[in-house]
Amino acid sequence: MQTVDGLTAYDYEDLRIGMSAEYRRVISQDDVRAFADVSGDVNPLHFDEAFAAKTIFKAPIVHGMYTAAMISTVIGTRMPGPGCIYVTQTLQFKAPVRAGDEVVARVTVKELIPEKQRVSFRTVCAVGETLVVDGDALIQVPSRARGEA
Amino acid sequence: MQTVDGLTAYDYEDLRIGMSAEYRRVISQDDVRAFADVSGDVNPLHFDEAFAAKTIFKAPIVHGMYTAAMISTVIGTRMPGPGCIYVTQTLQFKAPVRAGDEVVARVTVKELIPEKQRVSFRTVCAVGETLVVDGDALIQVPSRARGEA
Repeated sequence: MQTVDGLTAYDYEDLRIGMSAEYRRVISQDDVRAFADVSGDVNPLHFDEAFAAKTIFKAPIVHGMYTAAMISTVIGTRMPGPGCIYVTQTLQFKAPVRAGDEVVARVTVKELIPEKQRVSFRTVCAVGETLVVDGDALIQVPSRARGEA
Repeated sequence: MQTVDGLTAYDYEDLRIGMSAEYRRVISQDDVRAFADVSGDVNPLHFDEAFAAKTIFKAPIVHGMYTAAMISTVIGTRMPGPGCIYVTQTLQFKAPVRAGDEVVARVTVKELIPEKQRVSFRTVCAVGETLVVDGDALIQVPSRARGEA
């Protein structure tokens, strides 16, 4: 384990099946607006009460990909942390997130693949007891002798 | 096809295999900083020249999930557009994106699934000729008689 810019960075050798880390954030309506600005995703479902009222969601929801981005936050800053390489991610959008909700993104080591120093993680986001995003990530993790990450 | 807040919204019945839409954006370093602020992903790989120089990428790269978010932008604002529901997304991160690069996110109808009015899209992001993100999305699309989207 190393520290990079104050962030924990796990080496491949540090990781064991079942280890996990999380990131929590209360998503504000301003955050949703900022995500729309940076992504270009101005779908009225995220802002327009009248439009959202006519959908199955009944009221505006947070971008699914915004919630999903917090999985990347855990991976890039907490476990494995800086130095790892994002290979794949699957996402199942299970339930809506509303502005004001606290999202907890959590990654848990599922499988260690020594050949390429890859690690498979279960990746979930929840609001309270409700699973909102489910999926898996495949991450390449540097070895302790990190000449090259 | 309908128009919602000035955005094209395809109904399930409008979509045919092979139809596609895209979103282009030049990602600035300020955009990368804004994405880090909104997501919490402050991995130094995206900002710190000295850290990035020691990795396989050699220089800072854009968050993979930022690039991937533009797929959601196409889906939510261009095809199918407002009213659709994001069911699943797979992402393979194939090559790095740098601040200053123009990313083109493109979705193409791959399969129509009438049972649940679902549409499978091939979803790719490219910088010039280089495929940077590849994957598939499953989207539920309202029918022409959209009582409920």
